[in-house]
Amino acid sequence: MSARVETMRLHGYFRSSAAWRVRIGLNLKGIAAAHASVHLPHREQSAAPYRALNPQGLVPALETEGQVLVQSLAILEWLEETHPTPPFLPADPAGRARVRALALVPACDIHPLQNLRVLRYLKREYGRDQAALDTWARHWNALGLEALEAMLAGHPQTGQFCHGDAPGLADICLVPQLGSARRFGLDLRAYPTLSRIDAACAELPAFADAAPDRQPDAQ
Amino acid sequence: MSARVETMRLHGYFRSSAAWRVRIGLNLKGIAAAHASVHLPHREQSAAPYRALNPQGLVPALETEGQVLVQSLAILEWLEETHPTPPFLPADPAGRARVRALALVPACDIHPLQNLRVLRYLKREYGRDQAALDTWARHWNALGLEALEAMLAGHPQTGQFCHGDAPGLADICLVPQLGSARRFGLDLRAYPTLSRIDAACAELPAFADAAPDRQPDAQ
Repeated sequence: MSARVETMRLHGYFRSSAAWRVRIGLNLKGIAAAHASVHLPHREQSAAPYRALNPQGLVPALETEGQVLVQSLAILEWLEETHPTPPFLPADPAGRARVRALALVPACDIHPLQNLRVLRYLKREYGRDQAALDTWARHWNALGLEALEAMLAGHPQTGQFCHGDAPGLADICLVPQLGSARRFGLDLRAYPTLSRIDAACAELPAFADAAPDRQPDAQ
Repeated sequence: MSARVETMRLHGYFRSSAAWRVRIGLNLKGIAAAHASVHLPHREQSAAPYRALNPQGLVPALETEGQVLVQSLAILEWLEETHPTPPFLPADPAGRARVRALALVPACDIHPLQNLRVLRYLKREYGRDQAALDTWARHWNALGLEALEAMLAGHPQTGQFCHGDAPGLADICLVPQLGSARRFGLDLRAYPTLSRIDAACAELPAFADAAPDRQPDAQ
């Protein structure tokens, strides 16, 4: 792969879905960023050094030429604007709105409900055990994935990927979400279109190389 | 106000933060859309007629010239692309990334955790009473608003509004979130920068006219 050399550093964690999205995005754009691991189970994201980079205390953060960019979707839109080829978004406003909506379903309506800080809260404040946390996580994954399946299946613009035959922002958000759903034990056979797109993505090095188990901080 | 006449119809609900964002956006762009109320307490968003419009069963949805756009942030980006004046986003990629990140904190990390369907789940499955639901909602609001305050206070690009001296996407997401926080009883004096920006927004008819208590379906 002929990666452009850029002075970018991605602060993330192998298992974070939001960092995973940005890893895929960087790979698709052919950008070789340095990776810094923020150990979430050890709460490094809440400690002062990382908070100085991102006051929200969440990963990812992308450092680039003196700026620090946060929030995975804002980072991906920035990548799209500063490195337009290959594009994450189609050219027409209606297509862009469709792709962004498909990306926002996992980003807003699934992932935030089942990420580490929420599961920790339910365990600590509500005394829930791991089985109950898995049930909670499966519930919100199932609701969102069911919606995505309905939005994609049979839609004339759904192709080999979520929108046409090239991967984009919707696929970048879908693949890590399916990874989470699998981890929580959700049966993905109920979502044949999503599973088909997931398999097509897995064939691409940009997606395969971004997988959690391929990261140096994977345990 | 010299509103352009367009054939748009916004399906929303007076109290939905996500619909509120799109109302502000339409007002800022000077677009007079028709409004259709989807009664969330009566679960109209989950019934077949609305599901045919939006399979996810969430508001808002914007109908325009045969298309149906969903997910508030995707709708707002579409409005920005199709109606560029006045802009929601600055011209420079770094500024756009900052504004989008500020918008995504409430959109991803606060609102989805305290919206109606989550509170209903905690009540039904976990047997939580209203006081417990309010505590849950205040917790996630406080975490997110604290981060926003840290991102905005003293930042050289923060102006009268979140980014400079004109309202944009970050303000569009901030104002409804502060409305929710207030409704759940959070003391907003801990967030002086957010409160100052909220007050500046309230002076603008585009924001004032979008407030829940000004909507025909407000009860």
